[in-house]
Amino acid sequence: MSSNSSNPHRSLELYSFSEQHFEKHHLRSLTELDEILDTEKKYWLNIHKSNQEEIFKEVCTYFDLHPVVLDDIDNTDQRPKLEDFDNFILIVSKMLYTKSDIEHLEIEQVSIAFNKNIIITFQENEYDIFDPLRTRLENPNGKMRKYGTDYFVYTILDAILDQYYVILELISDQTEKLEDDIVNDMKKVRLADIYKQRKSLQEIKKIIWPTRELISAWRKSDSHFITKRSTPFINDVYESAVEIIENLEMQRESITTLVEIFMTNISLKQNEVMKTLTIIATIFIPLTFIAGVYGMNFENMPELGWEYGYLSSWIFFLVVSSLMMYYFKRKRWF
Amino acid sequence: MSSNSSNPHRSLELYSFSEQHFEKHHLRSLTELDEILDTEKKYWLNIHKSNQEEIFKEVCTYFDLHPVVLDDIDNTDQRPKLEDFDNFILIVSKMLYTKSDIEHLEIEQVSIAFNKNIIITFQENEYDIFDPLRTRLENPNGKMRKYGTDYFVYTILDAILDQYYVILELISDQTEKLEDDIVNDMKKVRLADIYKQRKSLQEIKKIIWPTRELISAWRKSDSHFITKRSTPFINDVYESAVEIIENLEMQRESITTLVEIFMTNISLKQNEVMKTLTIIATIFIPLTFIAGVYGMNFENMPELGWEYGYLSSWIFFLVVSSLMMYYFKRKRWF
Amino acid sequence: MSSNSSNPHRSLELYSFSEQHFEKHHLRSLTELDEILDTEKKYWLNIHKSNQEEIFKEVCTYFDLHPVVLDDIDNTDQRPKLEDFDNFILIVSKMLYTKSDIEHLEIEQVSIAFNKNIIITFQENEYDIFDPLRTRLENPNGKMRKYGTDYFVYTILDAILDQYYVILELISDQTEKLEDDIVNDMKKVRLADIYKQRKSLQEIKKIIWPTRELISAWRKSDSHFITKRSTPFINDVYESAVEIIENLEMQRESITTLVEIFMTNISLKQNEVMKTLTIIATIFIPLTFIAGVYGMNFENMPELGWEYGYLSSWIFFLVVSSLMMYYFKRKRWF
Amino acid sequence: MSSNSSNPHRSLELYSFSEQHFEKHHLRSLTELDEILDTEKKYWLNIHKSNQEEIFKEVCTYFDLHPVVLDDIDNTDQRPKLEDFDNFILIVSKMLYTKSDIEHLEIEQVSIAFNKNIIITFQENEYDIFDPLRTRLENPNGKMRKYGTDYFVYTILDAILDQYYVILELISDQTEKLEDDIVNDMKKVRLADIYKQRKSLQEIKKIIWPTRELISAWRKSDSHFITKRSTPFINDVYESAVEIIENLEMQRESITTLVEIFMTNISLKQNEVMKTLTIIATIFIPLTFIAGVYGMNFENMPELGWEYGYLSSWIFFLVVSSLMMYYFKRKRWF
Amino acid sequence: MSSNSSNPHRSLELYSFSEQHFEKHHLRSLTELDEILDTEKKYWLNIHKSNQEEIFKEVCTYFDLHPVVLDDIDNTDQRPKLEDFDNFILIVSKMLYTKSDIEHLEIEQVSIAFNKNIIITFQENEYDIFDPLRTRLENPNGKMRKYGTDYFVYTILDAILDQYYVILELISDQTEKLEDDIVNDMKKVRLADIYKQRKSLQEIKKIIWPTRELISAWRKSDSHFITKRSTPFINDVYESAVEIIENLEMQRESITTLVEIFMTNISLKQNEVMKTLTIIATIFIPLTFIAGVYGMNFENMPELGWEYGYLSSWIFFLVVSSLMMYYFKRKRWF
Repeated sequence: MSSNSSNPHRSLELYSFSEQHFEKHHLRSLTELDEILDTEKKYWLNIHKSNQEEIFKEVCTYFDLHPVVLDDIDNTDQRPKLEDFDNFILIVSKMLYTKSDIEHLEIEQVSIAFNKNIIITFQENEYDIFDPLRTRLENPNGKMRKYGTDYFVYTILDAILDQYYVILELISDQTEKLEDDIVNDMKKVRLADIYKQRKSLQEIKKIIWPTRELISAWRKSDSHFITKRSTPFINDVYESAVEIIENLEMQRESITTLVEIFMTNISLKQNEVMKTLTIIATIFIPLTFIAGVYGMNFENMPELGWEYGYLSSWIFFLVVSSLMMYYFKRKRWF
Repeated sequence: MSSNSSNPHRSLELYSFSEQHFEKHHLRSLTELDEILDTEKKYWLNIHKSNQEEIFKEVCTYFDLHPVVLDDIDNTDQRPKLEDFDNFILIVSKMLYTKSDIEHLEIEQVSIAFNKNIIITFQENEYDIFDPLRTRLENPNGKMRKYGTDYFVYTILDAILDQYYVILELISDQTEKLEDDIVNDMKKVRLADIYKQRKSLQEIKKIIWPTRELISAWRKSDSHFITKRSTPFINDVYESAVEIIENLEMQRESITTLVEIFMTNISLKQNEVMKTLTIIATIFIPLTFIAGVYGMNFENMPELGWEYGYLSSWIFFLVVSSLMMYYFKRKRWF
Repeated sequence: MSSNSSNPHRSLELYSFSEQHFEKHHLRSLTELDEILDTEKKYWLNIHKSNQEEIFKEVCTYFDLHPVVLDDIDNTDQRPKLEDFDNFILIVSKMLYTKSDIEHLEIEQVSIAFNKNIIITFQENEYDIFDPLRTRLENPNGKMRKYGTDYFVYTILDAILDQYYVILELISDQTEKLEDDIVNDMKKVRLADIYKQRKSLQEIKKIIWPTRELISAWRKSDSHFITKRSTPFINDVYESAVEIIENLEMQRESITTLVEIFMTNISLKQNEVMKTLTIIATIFIPLTFIAGVYGMNFENMPELGWEYGYLSSWIFFLVVSSLMMYYFKRKRWF
Repeated sequence: MSSNSSNPHRSLELYSFSEQHFEKHHLRSLTELDEILDTEKKYWLNIHKSNQEEIFKEVCTYFDLHPVVLDDIDNTDQRPKLEDFDNFILIVSKMLYTKSDIEHLEIEQVSIAFNKNIIITFQENEYDIFDPLRTRLENPNGKMRKYGTDYFVYTILDAILDQYYVILELISDQTEKLEDDIVNDMKKVRLADIYKQRKSLQEIKKIIWPTRELISAWRKSDSHFITKRSTPFINDVYESAVEIIENLEMQRESITTLVEIFMTNISLKQNEVMKTLTIIATIFIPLTFIAGVYGMNFENMPELGWEYGYLSSWIFFLVVSSLMMYYFKRKRWF
Repeated sequence: MSSNSSNPHRSLELYSFSEQHFEKHHLRSLTELDEILDTEKKYWLNIHKSNQEEIFKEVCTYFDLHPVVLDDIDNTDQRPKLEDFDNFILIVSKMLYTKSDIEHLEIEQVSIAFNKNIIITFQENEYDIFDPLRTRLENPNGKMRKYGTDYFVYTILDAILDQYYVILELISDQTEKLEDDIVNDMKKVRLADIYKQRKSLQEIKKIIWPTRELISAWRKSDSHFITKRSTPFINDVYESAVEIIENLEMQRESITTLVEIFMTNISLKQNEVMKTLTIIATIFIPLTFIAGVYGMNFENMPELGWEYGYLSSWIFFLVVSSLMMYYFKRKRWF
């Protein structure tokens, strides 16, 4: 990456392809496009490094994209969406990935503008999402070369959704770990951990719901950039999106259940504590009273002089406490 | 099963049938189909043993199925769905069964591709689901021979939904057992059991909801492979699906109620414990104090010398504790 | 009933009627119908005693009803529904009644198949639901004679919904009784009673919701067996169904509230118990300690020899406990 | 009112009006209408005193209203609704008012049947709702005289909805009072009061929801008795209905919050009680034990003979209790 | 502001603009408009100071606005909405801002009536919302001058929604502060604070939901005052509205979570209190009993005379309490 930092236009890679043809162009400026573009082939222009905003602007102007497109691409808080324009379809989507662990989820916005002949992708960073695409594009027998630009965009969406699966799987693992901990050693679990989990799911939900809407909008779109041939493919991604959402909702429900179990465990614990106290106290408090009685200093206490007085008191203590224990046992307190 | 392991194509069974005719063919290779197929009859090709993936591929190619079909059949995590293609309708559905008890629910994916003349079924394993179909097919007066391929597919869906009923019934029995245990002997019930029950229902819900959508898609489909004649039948399955879902939701509600009763029982238990402690403690703590007073060693304590001092103290003890008991009785503490 | 048991066909009552005409026929076999039926009049055929399944089958065959109709009528677990066929409209509905108290709710399935000229009703038992209909039919000025078969069916639905009202009213009375008990004497109420109530409502909900859908389907139906003239009537039943559902939901909410009040009462009770314990314990435990101190046997305890030592200790006891009482009073503990 | 009780037909007031004309007629019988009615003017017939049922019937017959109309008007439990007939539009609505305080909410059914020329209003009692209408009708420049009968009906609906606002405001005041009491003096609040509040809201909800549907039905109606001119007015009432519903839902949420605060306060109270008990008990129980030890009567207890034995024990008591206090302080128990 | 109070018409500012032209007019009376208005240019009339109701009325009459418009503008409790009239589109919207802190949220109603040529804005106060608009209008290259009146209105809505974002951000900060406090120092947090937060969100929800409906109504409107050119812009605001609503819902969920954590913390605290009490009590109560026993005054108590009696009792005390501690340790009570 360091080697390229001196070349500000390095990010302008153009791939031209058709069923027979595949070529990679390195553009210095957009004006070079005038010579290259022809209607026989399809083109993929990938732009990254969001800091080079001027290029974004130039591209938008060159291809006559609607002014809101630039806003949408620039604003990295944009909700995923699909918008039909006369000359282009714009898709804003979000990639989810994690470099270390699930608590450090990273989100990258990927915008795609495409029409019959050209696909322009806008990336925030140079992440490797498009590498497999390049490989597939080089394969002369792949569907990517044969099918239209919409199939190309479908493969991108498919890759993004696959990534969502991976992330959900990671979260699911953590939820299961929490579940085990709650059952085995409550002390390890803090309610805050459970809620953090819930928050992660909420983050993803915020991304995946509009993504489903996006795909749904694709299915309903009557733009002529979308061929009938790609319908089964996009239906498939749609099914994936629905499944991810269902998975997500099931996990949210699991976490709600975890909170309930956590709370119940606290109650059960408290119950146990109270029982212990009650058993000990109800056994010994009456006995202590009796002991106190025979510790009184009245002059005229006949029992004190009895030969077996002391022994009787011990017998009394044992009988009373045994009866108490029996009572608690029968009440199934322990 | 072992006897067949040497014959990799054993699974290619083809049934041809019409109102007058029924025949079973054993195919060695798909090319044999060229001679057999004619438009007068209907055909049912059943393929199982998912490990023979090449056959799946061959079949898809032979009948010119869309590329996503192969993916859908292969991926055994596929959501139930119906998809209209130009030359086929694809249905992916899930069979639910249990070989031992309800906690070991098994799910098998059954995919069906059909058009006017041919039904191709794809099974994961050689389970006996299609046996009754074969029997009904052999009956020359049965509706299966008279009606179209869509009626054939309906009978499969009907059988699958019947199986869902059975599974739900089993779960329902378990829920009732839990309910009884909670009422009769709380100690036997663990909250985890209740939640496990809930999880099973969630699993089924995940399958039955898309199944309803599938049937709904059938009803709305305008494919010419679906005859008007089968409408009342498919409406019937749809009603079944709705009823299963309602049943499921009622069971989920029952389980939520179980959790509530469980929690309330804990509270009631705790209440009882606390009352026991309070009654014993509030009776004896003041008495112990009095006993303690007359255990003090002050030189000048006139009561100690009284003739009936000791007796009076006992009378006092009895009066106080009786009053306390009366108070608790009136407060309906026991 | 016993007198008829020898006559298996007793249940075949046919009423023919038109604006001027009303006649009751007793049929021995369905073939007699060939002579009776003519297009000028309307006919009502009532079939009960579900054990005579062959009659059901014969009727279905005679009137050329779709095969699923027989299944629907036979299966007494069928969800209420309306289905349009070419030659008939089928309505499956449920009657709710109780012979003793509300906890023994009985459900009877009533199926109705009708077209322009004939109404066939299928009952499980010989319950008196159709008696008022017969009376109204005999009245030559009644709307039943003038209006079409759809008006006839409407009156049946109306009667069924009226019965739902009655049942809901009974449940509502019980809920109010529970409410009173909770306020006046918690001990009388068990959580299980409340949940049983909820379960009854759930049972009814399971019947009334699809009934509403049924009526809604009627309103949307474009079958030519449904006349425009009956629209206001069916709108009226629809309103009734909606009202019953709202009533039901309100009762469900009331019961949820009951559970909440029940739980809160337990908490309040526990609070009261704890306060009693705390007040007694915090007053007497310190006093007992002081008494214990002066019960110690140290040789050198100057207070023991004081003249007013014992008196002072009592004064101290009274002052401390008064202060405590004041503190609790100010904290509004009692 | 007493003066009129002798005149059974006093309630037949007919107002005829047009842009130039306004006249009040007192009818003895409906037949007088034959002479009065002409298509140039508009008419308003107001009928109250629901006990004179025959008049209701006569009016329905005279104007050829559909049989269900009479049922709807008669049944004062009717849900608010709008129904299109060929010759009339029927609106059933509910007036809410209170004569004393909010706990005694009164509901009166107002039914309106209107077509292009005539408005018939049916009231349960002679409440003053229509007085302002009369006044506005007398004003020759008012919109009421210029606009159609639908505008007239709109003003009635508007007045009814305004009344709902007033009632909601009253309930809102009470909720705020409850809120204040909970914060300032829990003892004043009983959970039952909160639930009573909730019940009142539920009552209103039962009326206002169908009222919104009614207005919505008006907006969608294609009856020729509804002019395009009145659309913005009815949209306005619709907005009001939506706003009342939102207001209602917000109040319901507030009450749910109140219940939560109530429950939390109980928990906090209990916590405080438990802390008090625990602090006192954990301080004095160990001290009492020590005092008990030196109250033992062993012959050989060297500490008892020590010169500063008694003093040391007091020092020990003070040190231990100070440490305890410090511990509780650090744990932020008080 | 004081300088202007003498000039009642100061608020009549008219801006006329076209692609080439921009001019500011100060009107004394509306009649001056007759000369100014021509169809070539677009006009913006901004009216504030809601106390000058006559101007409102005059403007409505001058431009022939529907009577309900005046009501809507006047009533500052109006729900946000869009209404299509034949000669104008009316938009009622709400501005949210805060002059000090988030607890003093202020709401100002902004109504906009526009057609092809003129935009009339009605403000409650002279807040600075329109300043940036003026600046953009002066820019001859800005889109505002080129695009239609609908673009102008879009920019107002956009500005209003941006303000909602700011407010939500402020609330979000407060929620996070509450979250921190709950984790770090429960004593600082009162449940009432959390509910106040929830109430603020509810207030905003009440405004933002109908705002979304408003924008949705714009998108669906087929009024010819709305050009196709502005569609992508309004889609963008719609996305913003949806995002704000999602943000709001997430915050509401966060607050629900806060309440749960608050409640759980109370439970955990109580648990800890109870454990402390139980540990102390169960250790010392039995010991105190033993001490009491040897404080009894029976004449014949052999242990009292033993040489190591007293020592043994101490050993016994230590052993018993150590065992108890060990037991609690193993039960993980501390």
